[in-house]
Amino acid sequence: MPYINLRVAGELSREQKQQIVAEFTATMVRVANKPAEYVIVTIDESPLQDWGWGGELLDQAE
Amino acid sequence: MPYINLRVAGELSREQKQQIVAEFTATMVRVANKPAEYVIVTIDESPLQDWGWGGELLDQAE
Amino acid sequence: MPYINLRVAGELSREQKQQIVAEFTATMVRVANKPAEYVIVTIDESPLQDWGWGGELLDQAE
Amino acid sequence: MPYINLRVAGELSREQKQQIVAEFTATMVRVANKPAEYVIVTIDESPLQDWGWGGELLDQAE
Amino acid sequence: MPYINLRVAGELSREQKQQIVAEFTATMVRVANKPAEYVIVTIDESPLQDWGWGGELLDQAE
Amino acid sequence: MPYINLRVAGELSREQKQQIVAEFTATMVRVANKPAEYVIVTIDESPLQDWGWGGELLDQAE
Repeated sequence: MPYINLRVAGELSREQKQQIVAEFTATMVRVANKPAEYVIVTIDESPLQDWGWGGELLDQAE
Repeated sequence: MPYINLRVAGELSREQKQQIVAEFTATMVRVANKPAEYVIVTIDESPLQDWGWGGELLDQAE
Repeated sequence: MPYINLRVAGELSREQKQQIVAEFTATMVRVANKPAEYVIVTIDESPLQDWGWGGELLDQAE
Repeated sequence: MPYINLRVAGELSREQKQQIVAEFTATMVRVANKPAEYVIVTIDESPLQDWGWGGELLDQAE
Repeated sequence: MPYINLRVAGELSREQKQQIVAEFTATMVRVANKPAEYVIVTIDESPLQDWGWGGELLDQAE
Repeated sequence: MPYINLRVAGELSREQKQQIVAEFTATMVRVANKPAEYVIVTIDESPLQDWGWGGELLDQAE
């Protein structure tokens, strides 16, 4: 029953999401012996304005 | 001080949200003896493209 | 695919956890038309020292 | 490596987000001796319809 | 209704937790005009073995 | 700045955690072009008694 939440700054394409879900799931199957059908992944895409790092918003660093 | 986060794939109507919040809160009051005014619920509606299950995105299963 | 995380201050008995999981799941089935076998619940029990409310730790209020 | 997630009901301006990130980071540096460059903050702005409190949605209280 | 979750690698003393909760709450009151009694903070202390950064566990870096 | 939280039912060995962190990080680098030093992973190991699935606690299924 692994549950994985991925939060990224910015956006991912559908192809990237599909590849990430496939690889994270394969890792859990291979490394932790979890059945693939128990592996759940959710993805949150946050605007750069909603991430802070080192005391600044990420959209400042650009 | 229970804090409940509900994440669903797809959307809920306002009526569904209201009913879920009312029932989750009633459960916490009845089963765990928490005062209703301490029960907080947040709801996240995620697109099907942002959920993976069994190594595939949920929008593939449709 | 609803995923519910419940965080409580203090502890719950196994019977309380079972009852809460059963009722939250029943709510999602009845109100949101989700199949019961897709409803996942996780529970986190936090010490009172690890909750703040109104600027104070919860263990101060006792 | 502190990771802070802030969830608010409603919206914040960019100036509020910047100020909050700066102050949360300063607190972690001063109180917990964490280097500023290790402090990560993410912000989620939720519609009032997606918060429940005391068994009601927040948009009912208005 | 701000809800803040702080996750740290390692442990904090009770005095540090109290100070962090007081300061985070004061920030939300001052910057975002939230009433102090609506500000909730939860703290999770994770072992260094349960954090990865740059592809390594934090306990490797010591 | 990807942040990944993995929650598993039961426990993982240190070797499994290290392998999972290495592989998740490699996936984010290869698929999403994120620098490895920006990829953060946290792991939560939950007792089976704290997971519900299909309306039952996971420790009932054993």
